[in-house]
Amino acid sequence: MRKTLRELSEMVGGEIIGDPLVLIKGVAPLEEAKDGDITFFANSKLSHFLKKTQASAVIVDCQTPGNGKPLIRINNPYAAFSRIMELWVTAKNYSLGIHPTAVLGEQVKLGDNVSIGAYVVIDDRVEIGEGTIIRPHTFIGENSKVGKDCHIHPRITIAENIEIGNNVIIHSGAVIGSDGFGFAGENGTYRKIPQIGKVIIGNNVQIGANVTIDRATFGKTWIKDGTKIDNLVQIAHNVEIGKNCIIVAQVGICGSVKIGDNVILAGQVGIVEHLTIGDGAKVAAKSVVTKSVPAGKFVSGYPARDHNEEKRIKASISRLPSLLKKVQELSRKLEKCEKRS
Amino acid sequence: MRKTLRELSEMVGGEIIGDPLVLIKGVAPLEEAKDGDITFFANSKLSHFLKKTQASAVIVDCQTPGNGKPLIRINNPYAAFSRIMELWVTAKNYSLGIHPTAVLGEQVKLGDNVSIGAYVVIDDRVEIGEGTIIRPHTFIGENSKVGKDCHIHPRITIAENIEIGNNVIIHSGAVIGSDGFGFAGENGTYRKIPQIGKVIIGNNVQIGANVTIDRATFGKTWIKDGTKIDNLVQIAHNVEIGKNCIIVAQVGICGSVKIGDNVILAGQVGIVEHLTIGDGAKVAAKSVVTKSVPAGKFVSGYPARDHNEEKRIKASISRLPSLLKKVQELSRKLEKCEKRS
Amino acid sequence: MRKTLRELSEMVGGEIIGDPLVLIKGVAPLEEAKDGDITFFANSKLSHFLKKTQASAVIVDCQTPGNGKPLIRINNPYAAFSRIMELWVTAKNYSLGIHPTAVLGEQVKLGDNVSIGAYVVIDDRVEIGEGTIIRPHTFIGENSKVGKDCHIHPRITIAENIEIGNNVIIHSGAVIGSDGFGFAGENGTYRKIPQIGKVIIGNNVQIGANVTIDRATFGKTWIKDGTKIDNLVQIAHNVEIGKNCIIVAQVGICGSVKIGDNVILAGQVGIVEHLTIGDGAKVAAKSVVTKSVPAGKFVSGYPARDHNEEKRIKASISRLPSLLKKVQELSRKLEKCEKRS
Repeated sequence: MRKTLRELSEMVGGEIIGDPLVLIKGVAPLEEAKDGDITFFANSKLSHFLKKTQASAVIVDCQTPGNGKPLIRINNPYAAFSRIMELWVTAKNYSLGIHPTAVLGEQVKLGDNVSIGAYVVIDDRVEIGEGTIIRPHTFIGENSKVGKDCHIHPRITIAENIEIGNNVIIHSGAVIGSDGFGFAGENGTYRKIPQIGKVIIGNNVQIGANVTIDRATFGKTWIKDGTKIDNLVQIAHNVEIGKNCIIVAQVGICGSVKIGDNVILAGQVGIVEHLTIGDGAKVAAKSVVTKSVPAGKFVSGYPARDHNEEKRIKASISRLPSLLKKVQELSRKLEKCEKRS
Repeated sequence: MRKTLRELSEMVGGEIIGDPLVLIKGVAPLEEAKDGDITFFANSKLSHFLKKTQASAVIVDCQTPGNGKPLIRINNPYAAFSRIMELWVTAKNYSLGIHPTAVLGEQVKLGDNVSIGAYVVIDDRVEIGEGTIIRPHTFIGENSKVGKDCHIHPRITIAENIEIGNNVIIHSGAVIGSDGFGFAGENGTYRKIPQIGKVIIGNNVQIGANVTIDRATFGKTWIKDGTKIDNLVQIAHNVEIGKNCIIVAQVGICGSVKIGDNVILAGQVGIVEHLTIGDGAKVAAKSVVTKSVPAGKFVSGYPARDHNEEKRIKASISRLPSLLKKVQELSRKLEKCEKRS
Repeated sequence: MRKTLRELSEMVGGEIIGDPLVLIKGVAPLEEAKDGDITFFANSKLSHFLKKTQASAVIVDCQTPGNGKPLIRINNPYAAFSRIMELWVTAKNYSLGIHPTAVLGEQVKLGDNVSIGAYVVIDDRVEIGEGTIIRPHTFIGENSKVGKDCHIHPRITIAENIEIGNNVIIHSGAVIGSDGFGFAGENGTYRKIPQIGKVIIGNNVQIGANVTIDRATFGKTWIKDGTKIDNLVQIAHNVEIGKNCIIVAQVGICGSVKIGDNVILAGQVGIVEHLTIGDGAKVAAKSVVTKSVPAGKFVSGYPARDHNEEKRIKASISRLPSLLKKVQELSRKLEKCEKRS
């Protein structure tokens, strides 16, 4: 496919600097783009690449100086590039219908244009919305619902009584609806608490590979619209995660934690049970959150505290060995002083 | 189902306060219980819910003051509630027998009343005990044994030469018997050490979703009776875990670690190789255990040390920036003192 | 099988101390070896076992004093033992050919002597090299290539456009080629960036159970020859890992990190995006690497720094509570001093 820079600019809404008729034949990152490609610049660390890129045009923000190439100027170059990129990505056509090896239970309801792959097992009373793709080896337990236009990758477990919205992407190996980890101690042994709640996943959610999301003890574990979850994340029973959150890989969230909207949890964070994380809060990588976090706050460390305070403390820690020496020296001097006086 | 409070009390052994004939029709948590439900109170943080619960009866411990509702007083309200809850949970009936799509090897021995799901693959000489449920897409390697009344969820790998006891629950995506991570360095490359040991899982063990348990190099990796393992836990080759332990999500246990009985490892803990953790020890979340831990000890931090000492250290760390200033000030004052004297 | 000590010594190249005709019938670890076994000694912590081992011969390094048993002296006892061990390990014979339940797409190319297990699904235009074993329930997406003599364990996802070298071992539950975690923020929501790159895995790589390796946004995520990856590791989009690295369990590597050859990352390490880790660098367990690491350097801590410096800091931290008291005391004394002078 070929598009003029003007056509692309009109699609994303930016301002053209230079020849609007330059012909674009593909997309590529800054350092790999060749003649005919459009690329984008959004990371100031890569400005040396901007100078020497072979691209025929570059999408830049409003602060970036020109590099002599035709430009599209726009507030959010990455988002604009992403839209343009989609023009050149040809979605694979999954064969519609039900693969002859799929095993479907009773009273299963399938929307139009679904694709059910080889060796998929779908239990009784499951509903699958129109346009949804269920790829090979996936299991869906009874009474579960998957919405429209979802992409359920190969080898996924969606257990019983799970509700999944529209436009949801789930990657291989994810387990939605394993039992919550609930036991009552009894004479030195542990008695399993029945886990009879469900999991509800909103619209436009993405769930990474080998993620685990436990069902609620009662009620629901709930991931709301637009939240994106990276690989190998653990979400315990009765957790509630708001809209448009970013949960990076290997995060662990304990039972009954309530997370607001637009929260960002960086990689390997842990959150202890029953806490609340306010809207727009951020938690730095590998922090352990032991107290509820107010809306908008950026915390880090173990225990997680105000990020600037934690930075000051981390900087102080690196001066500790010299501080110890300094205090010994002061102590000696003071002793001398005392003797003299 | 309906039960009088007296019937329930007799079942769990507690003392009734109030009308023993009140009729109970269901179970629910404190904050959601409605008229006709029985609930329980075991977390003092939820005492505001106790006052206004709509439940018809509450199970409480011996210290909790009454709230005007009929009560069952008992030492362990959560365990009692769990038993009562089981009355209202109807276990799903899995269809008995072997699904026509299951692939069974030679000399497989199946107990009575087993349920083998769609697309299960069971290799030669596997034995499955009576009443055990093997759900779809699970693979069981040759010479492995699964005991009685186990629930093996969908999409699990039980590799070769694994022994699993009775009443074991394994959640989706778990891998039992991957190779131990053993290599011998040789001229800058690594030579794989054959991993020819097994994994033995005791009775009443629960294993979470996407857990990985490696087989031993020689001998066995061993999880003893009653231990409960949460999601995404890593257990390396030749690890031994005692009875009735609690291993929370995302813990990683290195090779040849020996863990006693009734140990609790909180989430994201790491334990370095060849250590011993004594009976009844506890390790706080995200700690790294670098030395063996005596029986009964509670440790935390990296390196993990006595929990109270670690708390003192953590408290001191938050005072470090002000300490640095204080020492600078002392240093200046001392200089003046020295000049004067 | 029986071998004389001389035969074994000639195979691995060591020097015999004692009777070269002693007959060896098996292999075992030091503490479990019986009469007729050969064992090895390479861990000085186990020297008490060396004295009382029942083994008929021991492989030792050049420093270890004799224990009266026939010995093979060699520089690398563990590697030598590993080679000898392989004599007694009988590789399972997987049935060659294609299981009748496997589903193969169009234009699939299979080398000689492949073994394709039950319920394997292989998509269009996949190539599998000779001697490779694909075990049950594995999915391989279109246009992917798997080299010669690989062992692909049960229940693995190899997505589209993945290239895997020769002699690669992948354990159950691994996901190769999930989407990179890339989103562009747009009006408070997140827009998915298409992930159109690939994953390339070199020769002699081992990938652990439930590992996740994301495909590149553009270009490739790349694991080079000889690297060994333990269970539950997360490798993000566009990461490059050099030759003969060791990546221990539960490590998380963020996007676009470049790792050199012969690097060792201990368990639960995190590496933030876009960093470079030089050849031969080492990172201690649970460290968070926030700056690039030069070749050959050993770092630890959060932020990761020179390991010796981190050890000094950790040692200082344990003295913090007493330091605080000391400074208070100095402050009091100084005050007195000031008053007197």
